[in-house]
Amino acid sequence: MSEAVQTLEGWFALHDFRRIDWRHWIQASREERRNMREAFHTLVAQWENIEAEKRGSTALYTVVGQKADLVMIHLRPTLEDLEATERAFDLSAFAAVTQPAYSYVSVVELSNYTTKPGTDPSDDPAVQSRLKPILPKTAHVCFYPMNKRREGVDNWYMLDMEQRRTMMRSHGEIGRRYAGKVTQIITGSVGLDDWEWGVTLFADDPITFKKLVYEMRFDEVSARFGEFGRFFVGNRLSRDRIDVWLPE
Amino acid sequence: MSEAVQTLEGWFALHDFRRIDWRHWIQASREERRNMREAFHTLVAQWENIEAEKRGSTALYTVVGQKADLVMIHLRPTLEDLEATERAFDLSAFAAVTQPAYSYVSVVELSNYTTKPGTDPSDDPAVQSRLKPILPKTAHVCFYPMNKRREGVDNWYMLDMEQRRTMMRSHGEIGRRYAGKVTQIITGSVGLDDWEWGVTLFADDPITFKKLVYEMRFDEVSARFGEFGRFFVGNRLSRDRIDVWLPE
Amino acid sequence: MSEAVQTLEGWFALHDFRRIDWRHWIQASREERRNMREAFHTLVAQWENIEAEKRGSTALYTVVGQKADLVMIHLRPTLEDLEATERAFDLSAFAAVTQPAYSYVSVVELSNYTTKPGTDPSDDPAVQSRLKPILPKTAHVCFYPMNKRREGVDNWYMLDMEQRRTMMRSHGEIGRRYAGKVTQIITGSVGLDDWEWGVTLFADDPITFKKLVYEMRFDEVSARFGEFGRFFVGNRLSRDRIDVWLPE
Amino acid sequence: MSEAVQTLEGWFALHDFRRIDWRHWIQASREERRNMREAFHTLVAQWENIEAEKRGSTALYTVVGQKADLVMIHLRPTLEDLEATERAFDLSAFAAVTQPAYSYVSVVELSNYTTKPGTDPSDDPAVQSRLKPILPKTAHVCFYPMNKRREGVDNWYMLDMEQRRTMMRSHGEIGRRYAGKVTQIITGSVGLDDWEWGVTLFADDPITFKKLVYEMRFDEVSARFGEFGRFFVGNRLSRDRIDVWLPE
Amino acid sequence: MSEAVQTLEGWFALHDFRRIDWRHWIQASREERRNMREAFHTLVAQWENIEAEKRGSTALYTVVGQKADLVMIHLRPTLEDLEATERAFDLSAFAAVTQPAYSYVSVVELSNYTTKPGTDPSDDPAVQSRLKPILPKTAHVCFYPMNKRREGVDNWYMLDMEQRRTMMRSHGEIGRRYAGKVTQIITGSVGLDDWEWGVTLFADDPITFKKLVYEMRFDEVSARFGEFGRFFVGNRLSRDRIDVWLPE
Repeated sequence: MSEAVQTLEGWFALHDFRRIDWRHWIQASREERRNMREAFHTLVAQWENIEAEKRGSTALYTVVGQKADLVMIHLRPTLEDLEATERAFDLSAFAAVTQPAYSYVSVVELSNYTTKPGTDPSDDPAVQSRLKPILPKTAHVCFYPMNKRREGVDNWYMLDMEQRRTMMRSHGEIGRRYAGKVTQIITGSVGLDDWEWGVTLFADDPITFKKLVYEMRFDEVSARFGEFGRFFVGNRLSRDRIDVWLPE
Repeated sequence: MSEAVQTLEGWFALHDFRRIDWRHWIQASREERRNMREAFHTLVAQWENIEAEKRGSTALYTVVGQKADLVMIHLRPTLEDLEATERAFDLSAFAAVTQPAYSYVSVVELSNYTTKPGTDPSDDPAVQSRLKPILPKTAHVCFYPMNKRREGVDNWYMLDMEQRRTMMRSHGEIGRRYAGKVTQIITGSVGLDDWEWGVTLFADDPITFKKLVYEMRFDEVSARFGEFGRFFVGNRLSRDRIDVWLPE
Repeated sequence: MSEAVQTLEGWFALHDFRRIDWRHWIQASREERRNMREAFHTLVAQWENIEAEKRGSTALYTVVGQKADLVMIHLRPTLEDLEATERAFDLSAFAAVTQPAYSYVSVVELSNYTTKPGTDPSDDPAVQSRLKPILPKTAHVCFYPMNKRREGVDNWYMLDMEQRRTMMRSHGEIGRRYAGKVTQIITGSVGLDDWEWGVTLFADDPITFKKLVYEMRFDEVSARFGEFGRFFVGNRLSRDRIDVWLPE
Repeated sequence: MSEAVQTLEGWFALHDFRRIDWRHWIQASREERRNMREAFHTLVAQWENIEAEKRGSTALYTVVGQKADLVMIHLRPTLEDLEATERAFDLSAFAAVTQPAYSYVSVVELSNYTTKPGTDPSDDPAVQSRLKPILPKTAHVCFYPMNKRREGVDNWYMLDMEQRRTMMRSHGEIGRRYAGKVTQIITGSVGLDDWEWGVTLFADDPITFKKLVYEMRFDEVSARFGEFGRFFVGNRLSRDRIDVWLPE
Repeated sequence: MSEAVQTLEGWFALHDFRRIDWRHWIQASREERRNMREAFHTLVAQWENIEAEKRGSTALYTVVGQKADLVMIHLRPTLEDLEATERAFDLSAFAAVTQPAYSYVSVVELSNYTTKPGTDPSDDPAVQSRLKPILPKTAHVCFYPMNKRREGVDNWYMLDMEQRRTMMRSHGEIGRRYAGKVTQIITGSVGLDDWEWGVTLFADDPITFKKLVYEMRFDEVSARFGEFGRFFVGNRLSRDRIDVWLPE
């Protein structure tokens, strides 16, 4: 048996994608629209409060294309917190014009492929802030789930630790070339959802998502072992933009 | 032909996942909501009674994310009992706000990979209680179906018994390291549902699901031969929590 | 080109799976429910009459889990008969509470892998009764469609007749060990539906479905060449049980 | 690069599968049913007229099982003609009881695998009538889409022309043994729909679909290179049968 | 790690496929139909204006078969522009008779496989007009997404740059033989949508789609490495044709 990598876990994550029923929205009365919008503002204010108190973090983006219209990315300390957050949305007046589109349950993860042996990363405040991160406010977001392949000779889990570590380092170097342009949050979902990891990228220029993911695809760890799910791309939904996005 | 492993079967299992139509819930009158909630309480009381009399066992969890909102895991002596349990739910007033999300039909299974040759496990009271288990009341549950792969050189069913037994022992040792943290119920579904097995894990700390499944993935039996379906994770729905979960 | 096996065909088969809209059922008036139930009884009486006159056979089972609630397995002399049977159901009052769930079109098939060369099986009354069988009345049914694999070295259709015959004989021997416990109806669906065969198993003890299918999976013909679709399992719906199943 | 086969193209084809909402049908008033049926008769008369004038051809079959209830196979000179035909149906009163089930866009195709070098098949009136065929009026139809495989050593498009020609000849010989029993229309759909070809078979005895497709599966070109989509099988819907099929 | 190809990016692209609910259309009042049609005309006029001012380009086609009825191909400078365009459609009166069918988010891309080393293609006005193209007004369109395969020995991303360049050149030569007959727009979607590229072909004769895609399939880069998604084919929807397409 290959040695398993050790991981550190932080906040749990729910990527909650919803579609808006725009027909329903424009057929509602002006007063109903105001009530629904107000209900959404109330939720957003609660989420901002939680973030200000460092009890979690929430990022809001609208999604381009038909896969979804809105994604709410919630980081919270427990699965119970995630369920309560999801349920508060479902029971709000705004939810009446939304439909589920996709969701992903995972937990912020750091692996020891890139840490120095002999150190205890859990002592490190920088590590702690990466495990319980405040999500960036960039103009764009990209999300996709992924697996490491286990097929014939391309079986990641049959490689020994040293081979995996070498490949992951090379992979990390590509990522570091995008430092300052892209912030990456890796969440692990083995045992929690259908893929092994979720990747959430934050950037002001969406072309950097394409450049980063494409460059990495030529790296052996992605070329031979990467299996990818659906890709979602979005535009930031700031407090100010909500009233434009949900017109009276 | 490879020698087939011998199995012992116990109670049949139905994992019954449902979505709640929250819009319908909040649009119902307060009286309708009370009636629906009361109908669910009545079912739960019946299931608790069955468990108290050791005529079966039922575990209730709410599910995080959009795949489902509720899972009812029913163990019962016969397929007829399972159908009756499913039908009683369908015909209850509460079912009016629920929709089917996923289900899995299987039967509690023990295999002889890990039993001593020459002993008859059916004599053993410990074996009997594993075949007809009372489901744990842990804070969290994880469920996923799985197959053993049959592709090219990675064909589990073409291995001889000794190779399979050796790998399954190594696999079991990982599981035993999680003893006390995770309770695992294996149910077989060959000939009953779309995958070969269902795996149901119970734990108070959901990170142990991730650690256990991830560590096992580096074990040859999973790395080369494990094929996995959807993963569901949930929070315990105790009697007390029902009134919070279904607010007036 | 490998020599194709010769087959004999009998009655055409329609496996017609339906879901019941239980919410609709309980919201209907008592009189509507009586009318719908009566309409189903009328159809069942017609099917029993056809079976009594050996102009076909119909088996009725309720299905456990969410895949379906009812399966009607119809054997009839022609595709036109099958369509007429399906349509009579669709146009009945009972159909108003049902929804399509899955269906399978095939034809009862016997192959010459196991027949003696030089004999003409179509002369044999035993063969004729296997081609136009009256379906058993066992307590349980199991249905699944399947293919023979055609991938790389595991390509069934590139094997020569003798190799295939040897493997099919070994396969048949497992089946014969279950004689008396399981009745198996093989229907061919090449050119008729999405898989190559349908397998319908009848038994009083549903554990025998699991034992039989699992044991066969270790046989080379399944281990290397078997590809399986969805599995459905059901409980017999006798005339007497209909009024319990569809409560007033 | 392997030499591409040259093809001749004729009429465009739309296989338009629809489900009938039988509940809607029986709940409509007798007058509505008459109007809907009349609307369908009007369309059928127009299609017969087009066929009589050799401006296209249309075949109508009812489909057995739940995949669809009706298939309209339209051959027309242009894609604009196909769209107009589809739209006239959608805008008819009959369409109100139908739902889309599946469709396939392709074009009648002849390949030069089987033509003599040095001849120009486009001069040949027999070739022209195969490119713009009047569809047969057989009792049954079978439709399925297919690809040639491109996987590892089983990559059809990496074979040289001579290998492909040899295999296609052998394949054609099987087909010729069914001459008089089955009429086969091959339509190409590379660049037009999701598979590379559509195969439409016409026969009076549906067992010949099974025999032909099964025998071909043992031929190397199918055994190693054939990938198949869904199979649909139907019964002829003549003018006379419409009033039986759509009862008052 | 293989050297990644360098790419230039231009306008972002949204392929927005919709179905028309024709039943809803014919059941609306004449006045409602006029209002809906007028709303669509207003949108089209806005899109034409944007194109005239070179702030983007939009192509409109009706789609043959059941996959969709309409495709709007929008090229715009930013993802925010694409979202605004999509939303303006959703909030229009015409959207009330449409349903989402499929969408694709990508960005116009040129790669350096075919550019001369040492030149800077971004200086070139011809390159700029290919990155921000005005979409052709041909009679027909074809769209499909695609990947380069990463399986066993057929792993595009493990080839070195020179191998990839050689194959892409050969591929480009086939394309050039169709110059004047087909205009091809390649859009990259790594990190933006589920496939790596979108291919949009414009031609007056739809048979050229079939000939081009089929001929390319025999080229090694497609034969061994091409993986294709769904294919959509359409007929041009000019301003004049809208009133015919949406009849009063």
